Order: sequence, then C-alpha cells, then structure tokens
Amino acid sequence: MRSDNPWKIIRSKTVYQNPWILVREDEVMRPNGEPGIYGVVESSDSVMICAMNNRRELYLIRSFSYPAQAWRWELPGGGNDGDDATTAAQRELREETGITAETWTQLGDIRVCDGLMTERTKIMLAEGLTLSDVPEADDNDLISDRRFASLDEIYQMVQSGEIDEGQSLTALYLVERYLRQN
Amino acid sequence: MRSDNPWKIIRSKTVYQNPWILVREDEVMRPNGEPGIYGVVESSDSVMICAMNNRRELYLIRSFSYPAQAWRWELPGGGNDGDDATTAAQRELREETGITAETWTQLGDIRVCDGLMTERTKIMLAEGLTLSDVPEADDNDLISDRRFASLDEIYQMVQSGEIDEGQSLTALYLVERYLRQN
Repeated sequence: MRSDNPWKIIRSKTVYQNPWILVREDEVMRPNGEPGIYGVVESSDSVMICAMNNRRELYLIRSFSYPAQAWRWELPGGGNDGDDATTAAQRELREETGITAETWTQLGDIRVCDGLMTERTKIMLAEGLTLSDVPEADDNDLISDRRFASLDEIYQMVQSGEIDEGQSLTALYLVERYLRQN
Repeated sequence: MRSDNPWKIIRSKTVYQNPWILVREDEVMRPNGEPGIYGVVESSDSVMICAMNNRRELYLIRSFSYPAQAWRWELPGGGNDGDDATTAAQRELREETGITAETWTQLGDIRVCDGLMTERTKIMLAEGLTLSDVPEADDNDLISDRRFASLDEIYQMVQSGEIDEGQSLTALYLVERYLRQN
C-alpha cells in the first residue's frame, strides 16, 4: 500500500471462488471520504505468444471463447499454472500448436483489465520455430483451426472483426513496435 | 448459442453482484462430456479514447488503479453507463480531461478478457480537439497528472513499465495501424 493511496481499505472478504478465479469485495473509505465497496477479480497470471516464423508471420489459432460463446481467432496463450512465463509459454505453445522455439523474448508485462482484475499477462515472442504434430488437446484448449498469417493480414482480420481479442491486440502492438527497432 | 458450441450449459446462477459487475457460475457439460462449472464476469461495456492533436500526440492521464493499488499512466476511458459509445466517449473525455473533439472515429470493438469476461471496449479516435478546464472530478476519476505525448514517447513509457494497461495498448495498436493508412 502506498502512502499516496486515495482509497482506504477497511476490510476484505472473498465473495466467490472457483479453481480459476477469486472475487473479493473490499469495504472501503472512498477518496471523497464516503464509505463504499469495491469488487476485484483475482485470477492467476497468464501468457500470450507471438510465434513468428522467418517471414515475420505469426501463428494464429481459432478457439472457443466460453464468455463470448463463439469460435474466435487469436494468438496462442493461457494461464501460467504457477510456472514462470517462459516455461508457461513453452507449454502453452506446444500444447496448442505443436510448435517449439529456439529463442524466447519477453516483450511486455501487461495488466489485463485495469478497473476490475489483478491479472497480468506477459507477452512472449517465440522465434526459431520447429513445427510438429499437435498433441491431443485437453478440452480447455479446443482449437478448430490454426495457421500462420502476416501482420498485414492479421490487421485485415482485426478490421473485419474476425479478430477482436484484446490481449492479442496488445501483443500485436508490442511485436510491431519491437520489429521496427530490430 | 451456436450449434457448433462444444460446451453445453445446464443452468446458470448469479454468485455475486454489485453495481458494477455480476459474477455468474454456469453448470456445464464440458466438451469432453464431463460435468463441470464455468465462472464468467459480466460488466457493462466501456470505451477507450485516443485524443489526438494535430501533431499526432495522444493525451495521457495518470489515474489510480484500485486493483493494482497504484497510480498508472493510461489513455482516458470508462464505462458506457448505458450510452452509445460516442456519447460515452465524449462524456469520459470531457470529465477526465476537459477536452472536446470535432470528429469521432471508431477504431475497434474489442473483448477485454477472452477467458473470463463478457465486457467489450470500443476504441474511439477523437480529433479536432479543444482544451478547456477540467471539471471537478468525481472520486472514481481521480487523476494526478495529464499531458500529451508522442506515439514514440508513449512506446518508451511502455518499455520502461510506466504504461502497462492492456486496453491502452490495444488502442495504441489500432491507432498506429489507422495512421499508417490515413
């Protein structure tokens, strides 16, 4: 807690918990001095992966978003499950795409939802790729399609609405900026 | 619900609710046929604003993130409060920065957190800016500092960790791509 914190937390209680998220309601003194509450969603940290081949194309997957109830294109990624970001990214990439990579570079460490969540995502660039068969998927990682696409083609998919997943766009900002300098 | 949905929802119940979020737990049949649960956070849709002057600088604010318990630089934005995106963006920009804009362009409509939330954010470009005094802030919109910064300077702030807010980076991807074409 920083001394310049305009909020005062009186007490916290867990109001919901499942194996993936914990929802906390804090009783607070608001910056204006009035009593109030603030609900925060805690979930474990995660990784998003820019798996880039030597033509500077990124690997996309089409997976089912349960909250959106729709199949959507996005970059590979997932929860850390207690591992460091590189180990988690290596595992998620292998499980979702069958790809292994020679070099890993962390491009950023980003807060997913500023106002509601504590979750952070590390954006990882994977280069020197070797493609092999995709392992049998567990049912959280159902994927209907997968392929490389150029950065320009990916932007076309964003413009058409085929890609609308925020953490993928965060990763695209970081990888496009990185490639301008490297 | 689409017919190619690999999940079957048996029933839904609200497990937590406050004026800003609703947490729902669905009892499901998982894609592998096993019973299970899925927790989803519902919150109202939001806007992020790229307020760009004629030097192609964007307006940044430094506000307090309650989940992060820290003051952080980011783009202006906030909840729609039932308004359409342009009305909400006009209101949030005026309240947080005192700025009004002649033209508004929607750059994207993005899902904030693919795996956990239903919230969508519309990314709005504001041009033809008029700066005036910042109104008295309500306590949800406490802002300690505000200023224009170039896109290159903003990327330096991202690299240094001064900016780590995901929806701002999503907006930066969209505005940088838009400016390449316009």
